[in-house]
Amino acid sequence: MEQDLATLAATVADLKAKADATGTTFSETFYFLTIPLMILIHAGFLAYEMGASRSKNALASGIKNILAFALIVPFFYFIGWWIYWAFPTGLDLSEGPMGISGLAYANDVALPWSPAMGPNLDDRSSGVFWGAFVLFAATTASILSGSLIERIKLTGFVVLAIVLGSFVWILAAAWGWHADGWLVTKFGYHDFGAAGVVHMIAGFFTLGVVINLGPRIGKFNPDGSANHIPGHSMPMTLIGLMLIIAGFWGFLMGCVIVPGEAWSWSSTIEGTIYGTPMTLAGMSFNTLMGFAGGIIGAWMITRDPFWMMSGALGGIISCAAGLDVWYPPMAFVIGFLGAVAMPFVASFIEKRGIDDAVGAFAVHGFLGMWGLLAVGIAAQGYPAMFGEDVIETSFTGQLVGAVVMGALGFVPGYAISWILKVTGQLRVPAEAEVQGLDKTKVPASAYPEGLQASVSPAE
Amino acid sequence: MEQDLATLAATVADLKAKADATGTTFSETFYFLTIPLMILIHAGFLAYEMGASRSKNALASGIKNILAFALIVPFFYFIGWWIYWAFPTGLDLSEGPMGISGLAYANDVALPWSPAMGPNLDDRSSGVFWGAFVLFAATTASILSGSLIERIKLTGFVVLAIVLGSFVWILAAAWGWHADGWLVTKFGYHDFGAAGVVHMIAGFFTLGVVINLGPRIGKFNPDGSANHIPGHSMPMTLIGLMLIIAGFWGFLMGCVIVPGEAWSWSSTIEGTIYGTPMTLAGMSFNTLMGFAGGIIGAWMITRDPFWMMSGALGGIISCAAGLDVWYPPMAFVIGFLGAVAMPFVASFIEKRGIDDAVGAFAVHGFLGMWGLLAVGIAAQGYPAMFGEDVIETSFTGQLVGAVVMGALGFVPGYAISWILKVTGQLRVPAEAEVQGLDKTKVPASAYPEGLQASVSPAE
Amino acid sequence: MEQDLATLAATVADLKAKADATGTTFSETFYFLTIPLMILIHAGFLAYEMGASRSKNALASGIKNILAFALIVPFFYFIGWWIYWAFPTGLDLSEGPMGISGLAYANDVALPWSPAMGPNLDDRSSGVFWGAFVLFAATTASILSGSLIERIKLTGFVVLAIVLGSFVWILAAAWGWHADGWLVTKFGYHDFGAAGVVHMIAGFFTLGVVINLGPRIGKFNPDGSANHIPGHSMPMTLIGLMLIIAGFWGFLMGCVIVPGEAWSWSSTIEGTIYGTPMTLAGMSFNTLMGFAGGIIGAWMITRDPFWMMSGALGGIISCAAGLDVWYPPMAFVIGFLGAVAMPFVASFIEKRGIDDAVGAFAVHGFLGMWGLLAVGIAAQGYPAMFGEDVIETSFTGQLVGAVVMGALGFVPGYAISWILKVTGQLRVPAEAEVQGLDKTKVPASAYPEGLQASVSPAE
Repeated sequence: MEQDLATLAATVADLKAKADATGTTFSETFYFLTIPLMILIHAGFLAYEMGASRSKNALASGIKNILAFALIVPFFYFIGWWIYWAFPTGLDLSEGPMGISGLAYANDVALPWSPAMGPNLDDRSSGVFWGAFVLFAATTASILSGSLIERIKLTGFVVLAIVLGSFVWILAAAWGWHADGWLVTKFGYHDFGAAGVVHMIAGFFTLGVVINLGPRIGKFNPDGSANHIPGHSMPMTLIGLMLIIAGFWGFLMGCVIVPGEAWSWSSTIEGTIYGTPMTLAGMSFNTLMGFAGGIIGAWMITRDPFWMMSGALGGIISCAAGLDVWYPPMAFVIGFLGAVAMPFVASFIEKRGIDDAVGAFAVHGFLGMWGLLAVGIAAQGYPAMFGEDVIETSFTGQLVGAVVMGALGFVPGYAISWILKVTGQLRVPAEAEVQGLDKTKVPASAYPEGLQASVSPAE
Repeated sequence: MEQDLATLAATVADLKAKADATGTTFSETFYFLTIPLMILIHAGFLAYEMGASRSKNALASGIKNILAFALIVPFFYFIGWWIYWAFPTGLDLSEGPMGISGLAYANDVALPWSPAMGPNLDDRSSGVFWGAFVLFAATTASILSGSLIERIKLTGFVVLAIVLGSFVWILAAAWGWHADGWLVTKFGYHDFGAAGVVHMIAGFFTLGVVINLGPRIGKFNPDGSANHIPGHSMPMTLIGLMLIIAGFWGFLMGCVIVPGEAWSWSSTIEGTIYGTPMTLAGMSFNTLMGFAGGIIGAWMITRDPFWMMSGALGGIISCAAGLDVWYPPMAFVIGFLGAVAMPFVASFIEKRGIDDAVGAFAVHGFLGMWGLLAVGIAAQGYPAMFGEDVIETSFTGQLVGAVVMGALGFVPGYAISWILKVTGQLRVPAEAEVQGLDKTKVPASAYPEGLQASVSPAE
Repeated sequence: MEQDLATLAATVADLKAKADATGTTFSETFYFLTIPLMILIHAGFLAYEMGASRSKNALASGIKNILAFALIVPFFYFIGWWIYWAFPTGLDLSEGPMGISGLAYANDVALPWSPAMGPNLDDRSSGVFWGAFVLFAATTASILSGSLIERIKLTGFVVLAIVLGSFVWILAAAWGWHADGWLVTKFGYHDFGAAGVVHMIAGFFTLGVVINLGPRIGKFNPDGSANHIPGHSMPMTLIGLMLIIAGFWGFLMGCVIVPGEAWSWSSTIEGTIYGTPMTLAGMSFNTLMGFAGGIIGAWMITRDPFWMMSGALGGIISCAAGLDVWYPPMAFVIGFLGAVAMPFVASFIEKRGIDDAVGAFAVHGFLGMWGLLAVGIAAQGYPAMFGEDVIETSFTGQLVGAVVMGALGFVPGYAISWILKVTGQLRVPAEAEVQGLDKTKVPASAYPEGLQASVSPAE
């Protein structure tokens, strides 16, 4: 019988190795898949932005978008990832209560010569986490990108995109989207789906930039009234927005910590980045209901397909901070209300003489804020962190978070664009703008033939 | 040694928790991933339908498509999901042999205040199943949508889309795509990939509607001969169709029950929704072979890229009912034959004076029926359900299923569109149709510049 | 206590069944998901090629692309898959050292009447592997397709696509992308991500074809200088290229062997197709860094968005052979250098009077070669295969591999296109080319209205 026991122990050991291998490979795959899904966000943004530009600027918009994505990758590799792990407790580089932050920790896991920062048979997770974060970073830059089309200089844009994508948003994430983040540990800030640390940051940064950048020529009349400057292809924009919605599910997967690994919060159930439990099932309900509410709300106010698809995005953003906890009909209502407000916010901005070409502040900045506050209003009292007797979500915590996110987005956006402005790197010359950026800056042509009626078909 | 045994038992208990966690998280992820994949179907339908419209109607078609998706989500949450669980045995709300149907069961799992209908740490599957079903529902509405472009009133369309997406198809699914469905338990109906309950239902519903809706102005000449009214962008339509094909794989994943969970049919192998075993491997073979046969068949008959991509879809639909059982070369042949017949069916309908703008009846209605009957012809005698000594698939069973699906689709489509017609809610006024719906109904413009030959590139 | 032991043994047996089921279903799903992701590559190629054609040829390009995909599926089912398993050791059909090759093995697993070649409850992997390989095959044909647009005969193209997709590349894969491949076992050839067996083969095959096919009318002036013939929609081309990038991650997943199954190399960690260990994490780092380097390099040289997105692809291809081993900043440099060279290679080819319409030789042929040699230069000395005391990667091995791939691609491409040329099946008549292939060959029209400025929006 001793023999039997030894045999069984060996079987169990084998089985454990097998179960561990399946678990680790699955969890790696889970994050790996977020990358192609989020690249769909970028295919979508590319279509969206080119379509939202007049044809004389379509390729210049595309170039901006593609180049920002490319530049953020190495910057995030060399600097952004280190910032995320170094600064959760503030700016003093100290270690937080969970012990996964501070100077020593960041140096250990995120310096470019750390073993974790390359192929490594003993660390099968850092690379896929990093990949998901890079795509988050590129998404923040894409949010900025659309608002600046048709008049920004490429140099100026590139600087702004790198600052936002590799510094600003990741500092916000360290503070509010990290288990050691001071907004979380001190204020119970809850932002499951990055409504604040991605959308609000990017939206407020954009607001700061568009103020300095100024409106496109022809956007405002001498009496201050605004003209609508439509893009050259609304169908391209709408298809792009639907691709963004598809890719958004990869973004949301990137907000989940799967169970059972050494770095997991739980051995049994998915968690938020804060360690509180959640399920993909709940997220499915709420994402779809927020999406639907957003479209319907925007349709009721505008009847405009551009705003309907912006409302689809805006509905999800409105629910993002609490996607893990909403009751689904509540998610519908929150998305609906956000989308109803959205066009008025866009109009309010426009009335102030600000030209936000695609409404990024309304969709991302304002609705990201709404998402944070909605958690404070309707989802108070949940434990905000992993562990026993922890701080709870509260309206105050969400409000503090919203103020921090607004300031952390707006101030650098405004300040850096102001510096770029005074150094002449922000805006193209008026002649180039009038002629179109493609003619003056791009050695290619969007539609060299125009589109004539095609030849008649072969019989 | 008793000590050793206790230690080992503890190890095993840990291991079991770990294996359960991996299994549950994986299975949740499996269904979760169907959602973004199926949103690609909607990005595809959006491109397809806008491209298939004349440019004067492109945005109106897009709005219809987006709004239908949005409205189906809450309707399916509040009503559709409950119907699926309540009505499998017919209309008497009784419980079926598997015990997962009837009034009590539906009230337990699918009422909006049921714990299963929101975030719930003890139920990690309902939300992802529901999400997959919602996307199925939205797909049925999109099948309808394309045929009605360029002349339907938004009100009328919205009513029809909700009825089809939240009531009709899900009743069909309860009857024929549920282990307690009476078509399954009494007739051995086999419809693995929803050829009947999605495609045939949607196609026949559409047929009922287009009869009442009537043809577009200019579609038929006074002598009854038909004109071809091409859409404004065939490339957009083709790209859309290829995105639909990509997303279709998510649809097919949603037809699979993974093993090893409390709700699984088997602890070891994937099953159909009926509990019969299948593999993803077999489905890969047959989907690709049906796809290829469909393109080649349509190409041989038409040489037209629109029909080739419709044949790609049609080839998969032709094989859908038996994707789990076909021998792959047989799947090729079934897809090929279906696609060869498809253009003739479209032409037959057209000759009857019916204007089905994108051929939805031929592609979905007719080929869904062909798919069901093909199982009856060439895959008789398989067990149709989980368990021992169960009813088998048969030609009779498939024929009964096809008749039921045809009637269940056609009758409500015809009846409701007739009511809408007599109440003046079905069709836009002739002037609006002639001018274009975008001009009269949409506060935005698809291509405000047209597409002039672009500026010459910068040197 | 004996009782306890028996109970525990039963628990362990149950647990093992459960863990095996999860592992097998997960691994099947892993490969299954590569299929829809790679269909995105085809949606992307379709957009890319149609956009890169003048509008008079847009649909003809699309038809070519769709039909090639369709034809490769059955050819790969009936022949290609068998070739892969039959020929690894050369052309003598013998069995290699790993015992998974040769006549008997191929007949066992890959003949159309083999049980593995259809739904089979005992073989849950063959179908998903086959599916991934078919999509690889279709990708090779799509690489070829773009270069030949606007003047190739459909017959000729179809023959070439089938030869490349169902014979040539899969023979290359048998030799260099198989654990029994003679290039691997004898020379330590390392080509993790198919830089040689897919990209270089397809690029060199294409070069052979375009030499015989000749330039488009108007491409070269009487003095030999070249004109740029731009496609009709650069935005469509760019969006297509970004969809290809998204789908590429599915391609790369198809290069990974997951652990823990009967056919796996390891019970604990992912492997390359050669059995050497790797991680998805390392692949994420290197793919993103190569992508970024490629865009930035191409942007610095050209400022042209077409080349920037080609550089995105080219950067990944440059790193593909060593995606498992690069240090990420090295991947950035390799992608950057490749993309910097790429436009010069394209220009070099053009100066020789060769019209490669989309630069497939430069992007795929040349950069695939660069990828192979980069491994020889900077990643020598890794074990090239599974097992102890095995051959190592070396510059010589990579050089031999590159020569073989170049010849195996170029020779059949040149020879078959020469035969097609002399038999009059390669090129359309000059009148058809001038009028446009859509007018002469396609019973449909890309843009029947052209694109007029749209109607003004409803107020």
